[in-house]
Amino acid sequence: MATRLSDVAARAGVSVKTVSNVINDYPHITARTRAKVEAAIAALDYTPNVSARSLRKGRSDFIALAIPEMGSPYFAELGAEISRAAKRRGITVLIDQTEGEAAAERFVLDGMRGQLIDGIIFSPLATAPAKLTSIAIGKPLVLLGERPAGGQFDRVALDSVRAAYDATTHLVSLGRTRIAAIGVGGTSTGAVRRKGYRKALKEAGLPHDPALELAGSGYHRADGAAAMRELLALPKPPDAVFCFNDLMALGALRTLADAGLSVPEDVAVAGFDDIEDGRFHSPSLTTISPDKEWLADNAVALLLDRITGDDNSAHRDLTVPYTLQIRESTAG
Amino acid sequence: MATRLSDVAARAGVSVKTVSNVINDYPHITARTRAKVEAAIAALDYTPNVSARSLRKGRSDFIALAIPEMGSPYFAELGAEISRAAKRRGITVLIDQTEGEAAAERFVLDGMRGQLIDGIIFSPLATAPAKLTSIAIGKPLVLLGERPAGGQFDRVALDSVRAAYDATTHLVSLGRTRIAAIGVGGTSTGAVRRKGYRKALKEAGLPHDPALELAGSGYHRADGAAAMRELLALPKPPDAVFCFNDLMALGALRTLADAGLSVPEDVAVAGFDDIEDGRFHSPSLTTISPDKEWLADNAVALLLDRITGDDNSAHRDLTVPYTLQIRESTAG
Repeated sequence: MATRLSDVAARAGVSVKTVSNVINDYPHITARTRAKVEAAIAALDYTPNVSARSLRKGRSDFIALAIPEMGSPYFAELGAEISRAAKRRGITVLIDQTEGEAAAERFVLDGMRGQLIDGIIFSPLATAPAKLTSIAIGKPLVLLGERPAGGQFDRVALDSVRAAYDATTHLVSLGRTRIAAIGVGGTSTGAVRRKGYRKALKEAGLPHDPALELAGSGYHRADGAAAMRELLALPKPPDAVFCFNDLMALGALRTLADAGLSVPEDVAVAGFDDIEDGRFHSPSLTTISPDKEWLADNAVALLLDRITGDDNSAHRDLTVPYTLQIRESTAG
Repeated sequence: MATRLSDVAARAGVSVKTVSNVINDYPHITARTRAKVEAAIAALDYTPNVSARSLRKGRSDFIALAIPEMGSPYFAELGAEISRAAKRRGITVLIDQTEGEAAAERFVLDGMRGQLIDGIIFSPLATAPAKLTSIAIGKPLVLLGERPAGGQFDRVALDSVRAAYDATTHLVSLGRTRIAAIGVGGTSTGAVRRKGYRKALKEAGLPHDPALELAGSGYHRADGAAAMRELLALPKPPDAVFCFNDLMALGALRTLADAGLSVPEDVAVAGFDDIEDGRFHSPSLTTISPDKEWLADNAVALLLDRITGDDNSAHRDLTVPYTLQIRESTAG
């Protein structure tokens, strides 16, 4: 049973109101009373509950991280990094899985959590950041992801067009001429990365073949595996594939193995995210590697600056550094 | 800006106190006043903050899930399932990554979160469940994991001894005689699964070779890869390896690929957890597959029964069903 205010009062021989006054640091309490109450608090190992405390000090030292999907290794790894970055600053992160549903995302944003959460790091899927004005958030918010925040919020994101351009250009540099893309669907990640992919093909003077662009809509291993099967069934299959995330690339690699094809000899494969899975896979996966620690650290720092009010500047848009990690799936 | 109580009061033409009384369902409010306030709340889309609300109704409809590591696919997949199981019941799960540190685990347990969280699903790493009496938790708690709760808490767990026995017996049935184990360290998972592994060897009449038991202490891919390198350096390397989780098995598979060895012909490999990664890997990974959906659903149901007070029975210990999934890494 948790210790209650009344237990402390009984032990100190004072009223509950007096204990409350001591905890809340009210003036007009004698040193002797304060000492008695503090001794009782220490003896009983009493912890004031956070609702009462946060109502008083106006901060809970908890922040929320809302991500679409915890089972996705990219978000799991990012969540772990953000949790670590916050812990270094004495802040606890509570993670909420929205499954990319508009209702759940709105629930995070509409301030239902009241006093509990000092601010939110939000990776939206269903909610367009441009529509966020209409929602009364009432808390500091840092956005992650592809879509611009329109100057309303701080945002930390990769330059995904440039990264997709770099990955595609790497495949071009290997002499590949039929370079497919998996994951081009949707209005967010897919659309942005497709832009970089097409730009690279255009600059290389390679023709744009719509048959080589597949939606891969779920961004899971099974989507990549299915898309790769479609590509292999084409009259002229591709000699390279750029998957818009590592999970789909790992699914595509499984399909290629099943088909008895060699990677990278027959088909070179590149991914995006640099999840641990791809580093240990055989063949290991060439990928765009965002600096997740940098991302986490800056997202948390940005949010805390807003929470403490140390930062009243215009909203900032930070660009996450990345590298292209060339591994066995493209360099044989 | 979030709508405040005072905005509602102004619009309804009543005092803040009256609005508060309506929200808190106090008696002695005329129907006319109530209607005015409710109309103002609807017009302004006002949401009372959760601290105030949960102080009143005594429940927040949030539960916490404390797991050691979000970046580990097993916990990520389990967290996603628990989040889904709770959502089906109108409950939001907030996930806290303890990194298996005693201080963080204690922080979850000691009720710091006060009114916010109705209960906790806790997968301990540093904290021995037997020591939990000493901590004033003051909230319903459901334990996950290997170690018995000593009748103090509800627990949902696999029969890990039996599952490890089954996996090892499967390797024996393939005619393997030098079966190694990776992950035997520690007092929890490692010790429990080692018991099943040794029991299977003993029953099969196979000698127990301490050189074939490696700690693999971190349970990550890198630990499995390093342990496999040690095993291959032995004068008599193993012809089968049972890794106590899939991540280590995937690391071991990478080492075997680097060494030019065939799986399962030269070395058969089995894991534990059935993470998605192992299903798509080539070779796909033979593993113990706990029914994660069952686990999640029962852990949430058990916790909610305690929270609502519908269940005042003795604490229960539920055993999670599992299957042995035989895949390419053992069946060539």
